Amino acid sequence: MSKSITPRATDYSQWYNDLVLRGELADYSAVRGCMVIKPYGYALWENMRDALDRMFKDTGHVNAYFPLFVPKSLFEAEEKNAEGFAKECAIVTHYRLKSDPNNKGKLIVDPEAKLEEELVVRPTSEAIIWSTYKGWIQSYRDLPILVNQWANVVRWEMRTRLFLRTAEFLWQEGHTAHATKAEAIEETVKMLDVYADFVENWMAVPVIKGVKTPNERFAGAEDTYCIEALMQDGKALQAGTSHFLGQNFAKAFEVKFSDKENKLDYVWATSWGVSTRLIGALVMAHSDDQGLVLPPRIAPTQVVIVPIYKGEDQKALIDARVERIVSELKACGIRVKYDNNDQARPGWKFAEYEMKGVPVRLAIGARDLENNVVEVARRDDQTKSTVTLDGIAGHIQSLLVEIQQNLFQKAKSFRDGHITAANSWEEFIQLLDEKGGFIAAHWDGTPETEEAIKEKTKATIRCIPMNNVPEAGTCILSGKPSTQRVLFARSY
Amino acid sequence: MSKSITPRATDYSQWYNDLVLRGELADYSAVRGCMVIKPYGYALWENMRDALDRMFKDTGHVNAYFPLFVPKSLFEAEEKNAEGFAKECAIVTHYRLKSDPNNKGKLIVDPEAKLEEELVVRPTSEAIIWSTYKGWIQSYRDLPILVNQWANVVRWEMRTRLFLRTAEFLWQEGHTAHATKAEAIEETVKMLDVYADFVENWMAVPVIKGVKTPNERFAGAEDTYCIEALMQDGKALQAGTSHFLGQNFAKAFEVKFSDKENKLDYVWATSWGVSTRLIGALVMAHSDDQGLVLPPRIAPTQVVIVPIYKGEDQKALIDARVERIVSELKACGIRVKYDNNDQARPGWKFAEYEMKGVPVRLAIGARDLENNVVEVARRDDQTKSTVTLDGIAGHIQSLLVEIQQNLFQKAKSFRDGHITAANSWEEFIQLLDEKGGFIAAHWDGTPETEEAIKEKTKATIRCIPMNNVPEAGTCILSGKPSTQRVLFARSY
Repeated sequence: MSKSITPRATDYSQWYNDLVLRGELADYSAVRGCMVIKPYGYALWENMRDALDRMFKDTGHVNAYFPLFVPKSLFEAEEKNAEGFAKECAIVTHYRLKSDPNNKGKLIVDPEAKLEEELVVRPTSEAIIWSTYKGWIQSYRDLPILVNQWANVVRWEMRTRLFLRTAEFLWQEGHTAHATKAEAIEETVKMLDVYADFVENWMAVPVIKGVKTPNERFAGAEDTYCIEALMQDGKALQAGTSHFLGQNFAKAFEVKFSDKENKLDYVWATSWGVSTRLIGALVMAHSDDQGLVLPPRIAPTQVVIVPIYKGEDQKALIDARVERIVSELKACGIRVKYDNNDQARPGWKFAEYEMKGVPVRLAIGARDLENNVVEVARRDDQTKSTVTLDGIAGHIQSLLVEIQQNLFQKAKSFRDGHITAANSWEEFIQLLDEKGGFIAAHWDGTPETEEAIKEKTKATIRCIPMNNVPEAGTCILSGKPSTQRVLFARSY
Repeated sequence: MSKSITPRATDYSQWYNDLVLRGELADYSAVRGCMVIKPYGYALWENMRDALDRMFKDTGHVNAYFPLFVPKSLFEAEEKNAEGFAKECAIVTHYRLKSDPNNKGKLIVDPEAKLEEELVVRPTSEAIIWSTYKGWIQSYRDLPILVNQWANVVRWEMRTRLFLRTAEFLWQEGHTAHATKAEAIEETVKMLDVYADFVENWMAVPVIKGVKTPNERFAGAEDTYCIEALMQDGKALQAGTSHFLGQNFAKAFEVKFSDKENKLDYVWATSWGVSTRLIGALVMAHSDDQGLVLPPRIAPTQVVIVPIYKGEDQKALIDARVERIVSELKACGIRVKYDNNDQARPGWKFAEYEMKGVPVRLAIGARDLENNVVEVARRDDQTKSTVTLDGIAGHIQSLLVEIQQNLFQKAKSFRDGHITAANSWEEFIQLLDEKGGFIAAHWDGTPETEEAIKEKTKATIRCIPMNNVPEAGTCILSGKPSTQRVLFARSY
């Protein structure tokens, strides 16, 4: 690889872009703010999606698909939701192009094909889904509805970054309907737990589960639960949210059900989502100055095998032996690639797969064959060892588990070392500027103070952790009394 | 089920709508021409998608994702493609809503947020993808590119029908790039074969592989290959297309590569797609007046078990035995559902699963338990038999294979019986009006005659079958000489 990566210490933001582009996860596109997800990035997303999808199905959910467009009159029905998203909506106003009479071969929007009612390209689907649920729900027997959708959504962001903030992104959005408030809250928390389980155990990224302050709530929610992760530069990243929507959407769309006593009531709702943004979190949580570092459970390729040979005879011998190794690994469900392309040197391949974050690399030469061994290189700690080929599949299987755990532990140590208590404003500022990470501090509970802190420092309250321990104290900014610490951070 | 289905003989079109709605495959939505794919319909689509996706990957393809929007200047670059789709494009012109000053709580499009360049919601992705490939391709070493995308697309249709023709639909679109014409044509035909394999062996719908006439080609293609299926009402349905795009898009987007001799040439292209329209084909190919009939290989539920009992004691005994049956079936990879919901009577459940097209129903009562048997009902031919519970999983497995084959054979007999030769204009008209199906007839090879036949009869040339046998004759309309018969039909 002639293309080098900007080191984190030099420019963290450029390092991230280098990784995404050179690791071939995504590319810029001809459309402002939209990205192309390249095959390697999409394979990663497929593994993430499939794991999440199984978890959703195991918790009783089914998938469905709702329209891309939301008629404006439906979009505006839930006022807070509409207000929250109005400023970032792509709007379809016409349904036809026609030849430009003044410019041969060019097209213009046909003014006669103006829509009577404009269509909003969905920034989220509560409105279109709840207008549909109205027709599906009459009685308590129709509840709960536990539906998820895998889809693209569009939010017109002014400043975009690959994966982290793009005008169009891919996500899943669960939309559930319940007969009782308690059941809806239980669902909200259950799906937060599913997200935490996925992000920690598949992506190897530790998260803090918590509740958002009213300021940071999803537009239209009664409560927003979240998981917050920490990146290597000390900034937090919201990795997933689960919303208790109360009866807000049921009221906006007049969705009532008759309960067992035949009384009519509005339906209770939740919604929850994670997106391709998670790929950004993954890149920033584990990778290093040599390239991507991917956790084995979701890595598109878990093991790459590179032959080292002189001449066709050696190559043929190695090819034959590796064919058996590949079969053994595949039989254990390991995603393995044998790269015996003779257009590239081993050193080039080593750098390439290091860049791509492949967890384990096996290198095998003629001498290794004689000794019945292989060189095993770990991407995570960059150590190498020589391992016997007898029982190699079992060895690799254990190694992949070990790497997965190591990545999580490493990220967790870093994260745990970056949750710091601040007891004064000076300490708060100093921690933010010099150490970063989450800062546990007292806050007086008012949106005004929260806003003032944000303006002064760019730090926001990431969450009030679940099961937070009550502690009397005084707000770091206002000095007013406080009953608990909350977690502040600068964030993506 | 109190809701009855309109019989095919009464109103075929209404029968189709009844099935889609009452079979809970899809629902109308609040957005003109767009549908909601309900969980049962989406589960069917997931099975179809997963099978196709494996076939694409087995033939060397990878998935990626490209933007939903196409800037107008890119859209119009390939003139024929642009001309073909211009009349049915949803156009995004603005990126913000704002509060309506005259109408509190309502929103209007913010005139200050007008896009400098309008965005077309993709009706197909050649333009955005080839503008991207330009950056990916420099040399023959970058070829071939074998990429597929699963996505939603929008074509503003004036007359829509659930699954068959909707403004938004889900599909996959393969877009490949090659160094030679021969390789691109080989790819085009290979993917047509994949489609035929899938539709015949998974959906149990026989297809005819052929080539479209220039009139019916995809806008921007040099050649369009297709698979054509026959519905029970004698109308044809285009089930999938694979296009050889020549160098048209490479020229429009200036995508050149240097070959082994370092000479620059334009890249050769293909594209190929199938969509949720296939679900419409599936419904119309197999279903009957009692409801859906789904082929076992893609049915969301392959086997449903219904207990027949009096009182809790009998139910408990049956539950316990069925639990073991379910385990046995699941161990064989069979998708089985046990419906012991005590809110509904067995008769209601029988009708419900008949409506849903579940291939096999097992009914088990207390007496059956004593005799160690179960009643097995087939959805396809509506026969019932009593079968011993010993080795029930193996029996069901064979039965599912048999049902799959039976559905295909039945559809194939019907289709084969509906390919009829016509040797005069009178015969042609009579066959179209009285028998339907494909009519093999001579055509003089001109677009004018093809157009005239379409205007007079609404029949189009569905395809020129692959490996068509040359035969001298005279055109049924013009009487001019012809070298081969082509297949005409009225179609969806």
